[in-house]
Amino acid sequence: MSAFPCNSLTEASASWLGSSLVSVRQLSPGGLRLLLSVSSEMKQLVRLHGGDARLQHRVLSNVFYEASTRTSCSFQAAMLRLGGRVVCVDAAHSSAKKGETLADTLRCLECYADVSVLRHPVTGAVGEAAGATVKPVLNAGDGTGEHPSQALLDVFTMEDELAARGGLRGKTVVLLGDLKHGRTVHSLAKLLARSGIEDVRLRFCSPTQLPMPQEVRDEVAEFGLPMEDFTDLKEAVAGADVLYVTRVQKERFESEALYDEVKDLYIVDKAIMDVSPETMVVMHPLPRVNEIATEVDADPRAAYFRQMENGMFVRMALLALVLGKSGV
Amino acid sequence: MSAFPCNSLTEASASWLGSSLVSVRQLSPGGLRLLLSVSSEMKQLVRLHGGDARLQHRVLSNVFYEASTRTSCSFQAAMLRLGGRVVCVDAAHSSAKKGETLADTLRCLECYADVSVLRHPVTGAVGEAAGATVKPVLNAGDGTGEHPSQALLDVFTMEDELAARGGLRGKTVVLLGDLKHGRTVHSLAKLLARSGIEDVRLRFCSPTQLPMPQEVRDEVAEFGLPMEDFTDLKEAVAGADVLYVTRVQKERFESEALYDEVKDLYIVDKAIMDVSPETMVVMHPLPRVNEIATEVDADPRAAYFRQMENGMFVRMALLALVLGKSGV
Amino acid sequence: MSAFPCNSLTEASASWLGSSLVSVRQLSPGGLRLLLSVSSEMKQLVRLHGGDARLQHRVLSNVFYEASTRTSCSFQAAMLRLGGRVVCVDAAHSSAKKGETLADTLRCLECYADVSVLRHPVTGAVGEAAGATVKPVLNAGDGTGEHPSQALLDVFTMEDELAARGGLRGKTVVLLGDLKHGRTVHSLAKLLARSGIEDVRLRFCSPTQLPMPQEVRDEVAEFGLPMEDFTDLKEAVAGADVLYVTRVQKERFESEALYDEVKDLYIVDKAIMDVSPETMVVMHPLPRVNEIATEVDADPRAAYFRQMENGMFVRMALLALVLGKSGV
Repeated sequence: MSAFPCNSLTEASASWLGSSLVSVRQLSPGGLRLLLSVSSEMKQLVRLHGGDARLQHRVLSNVFYEASTRTSCSFQAAMLRLGGRVVCVDAAHSSAKKGETLADTLRCLECYADVSVLRHPVTGAVGEAAGATVKPVLNAGDGTGEHPSQALLDVFTMEDELAARGGLRGKTVVLLGDLKHGRTVHSLAKLLARSGIEDVRLRFCSPTQLPMPQEVRDEVAEFGLPMEDFTDLKEAVAGADVLYVTRVQKERFESEALYDEVKDLYIVDKAIMDVSPETMVVMHPLPRVNEIATEVDADPRAAYFRQMENGMFVRMALLALVLGKSGV
Repeated sequence: MSAFPCNSLTEASASWLGSSLVSVRQLSPGGLRLLLSVSSEMKQLVRLHGGDARLQHRVLSNVFYEASTRTSCSFQAAMLRLGGRVVCVDAAHSSAKKGETLADTLRCLECYADVSVLRHPVTGAVGEAAGATVKPVLNAGDGTGEHPSQALLDVFTMEDELAARGGLRGKTVVLLGDLKHGRTVHSLAKLLARSGIEDVRLRFCSPTQLPMPQEVRDEVAEFGLPMEDFTDLKEAVAGADVLYVTRVQKERFESEALYDEVKDLYIVDKAIMDVSPETMVVMHPLPRVNEIATEVDADPRAAYFRQMENGMFVRMALLALVLGKSGV
Repeated sequence: MSAFPCNSLTEASASWLGSSLVSVRQLSPGGLRLLLSVSSEMKQLVRLHGGDARLQHRVLSNVFYEASTRTSCSFQAAMLRLGGRVVCVDAAHSSAKKGETLADTLRCLECYADVSVLRHPVTGAVGEAAGATVKPVLNAGDGTGEHPSQALLDVFTMEDELAARGGLRGKTVVLLGDLKHGRTVHSLAKLLARSGIEDVRLRFCSPTQLPMPQEVRDEVAEFGLPMEDFTDLKEAVAGADVLYVTRVQKERFESEALYDEVKDLYIVDKAIMDVSPETMVVMHPLPRVNEIATEVDADPRAAYFRQMENGMFVRMALLALVLGKSGV
């Protein structure tokens, strides 16, 4: 797996080609800028023609060691819309059961495929697998580790939704919910930090028991982004440009009592929207349970289903870039 | 979801475009006529070329909340033969488990796909989902509710098998088996009733404990089709044009005793075929257990495997129509 | 299902067309030669272009009654790289549960597809299914019976790896491991016997408790190949051209004691490679557990991942031949 320490789009294009994507830490500002730009082209392509045939005769091996309908479907659809083909591996039933290592499994699968997408419950497993293979491996989530394509689609959505106002530059992003356990918000904060997009301000709004971890704060601080903590949602949204809502996941809590205490603390509903800025973008990685009321869905600021769609465009861009078919 | 209250083929074509298909009740005679005609074209297309590329760059999301190999494969093959792509969602493992509503799941999936096929164990669930989405949803069976593509392929098969004799018009159709519980025969009776095909006569042949429900009879009566009840199979097939056999499904019975009493009551075997009209078409939605003896398979009147194949042609037509690529 | 008793490539091509492949016993030397030659072309095709569109509008029904990631993915990728489409049937959830026979299930699936691949836990089941269908069925493993595409890819790999030295003709092949229970080595020995490739010598190296069965020896003897038995691995590899390693499968043993006794008896590691001929090809059907040390992977003689890749080329050739698109 290679890093992407590039500053020009041409360099960035060359550094994507054939590379695995394991962590947002691999991304340089130039590499990210290229990805966002190709993602925009993919959005146009799907709007105009549904897709094209640039990846014809290419095969994606979609390997999920734990179920993730959304991410799996998004990568599948991304490959298919570029004319490629997909072989899905329900890895729960794979040869792992026969005592095979993950590295061997991935080396076998790359015999058939040109690129692999891998989801695995163990943190670091995807990096290990990517180290054993010749062809690119894209991390679709490894345990409490990383989920880089999610962070990428989140940043793309912010840039896209804020396009008329000059993009993310100089904007304020609120991360809301269980910030202690949320893999998504950790990756997103780290990616925003190293994005090269200037003057982004972060607000962390969470129950006091579930703060953004120090390790993430340290990494953000390294890149100089201002951070502020909130417990009151109304205060947090005042003057905000993006509200990124996350689900409080029961399975992450040690005690049922603590879960019950915090689960309904932040509900984004019409009342909250009424006191929020008129241009504030509301995002959510989905699925949601009740943390965003369905009455908000019709609000033009509710961007979460568009965000979901953007996931496909960003994954189309990823596949095109690592397979050398981005057109750049 | 829109209804199809149209009388000309052009109107019908316009009304299929972008519409969900939840119930046979949506169908007008014109809409049905168009579907049957496009299905015939699809049959020719597959015979001559295997398929074409009219749905290239289009993606179908195939969402099954309960297993149904046949229906799932039939829709998949239909999409693939028209050049489209399929993303299969094993919904048993989906985000529903994370507390997401069906409406949210479908709204997410339509972010990647152009059309969804949905099978769900709860009656009415597909209609509800179709109400939440922008893109077409095709009902592939919802509990004890509807399974409209099955009813459509049944009518197509009857018209096709009887083509040399002028089609279904003026013909007598026997529905055989457990008519009380069978979703298939209910939908079929309702569709024949509103088909606009003239002078179709229905015969219901079932154990006295398992009659066709009054609700279905009332709906058929509304359209004026004559109905007659039988318990003796030999009497029922006398002069019949179509014999539609169904499986007695053990899981629908409250008592094992009642099941044992009726399960082998009607076996279509060589002896029955010998006393049946020479041109009588034998159909079955499959899978069969023992209600049609395998010795009947070689009889030219045995149309059930052709019926299975017709399922693909009818689903090709459905997909082409709702995606505006029927050529009409 | 037809046999392939042909001697010219034209005859062989005609005999593959539309045929099922149930057993290596169906293969004639001419039929095998053609398969190997088309497999080589497929290897070139993938190297140069990734694939082509010769099977466009053709559909493969991939039916697995037991999980086999590798074989399933290999057949899928083979079909996709030739422009065909795949419908995957997770047969564990199929209508078999509703009491349907395997023959009926396959007859239904061939209504949608042009060719089926079938894996089934019961010996002989694939032959039975192939007898009931009109379209070709390819055996992807039936219980302790046959797995012909594995034997074919093994022979292709030997010919390919030994190409610079004149191919398999006159070479010595060591089969290593649990030769009593291994379906793979049984099929491979039988195929080598009837391959028409001259002067191949077989060495069987196994624990004395797990010898190659008499039935296989008899079949090999019929074709006149010399066989020799070994228990010492170092002796077996002396002067050998191919070392075919297999996994000792715990589930095949009646007593844990016997398994523990033999499981680590033969480990192919650097020490073994150091005393082996410089040109000896090391093969393994994979997955491996510990019978080949990972330190051997970087040795140029280690051919097992190339063997895995060859599986796709051979299956591309199989699909092209039975569907009449081999170009011969």
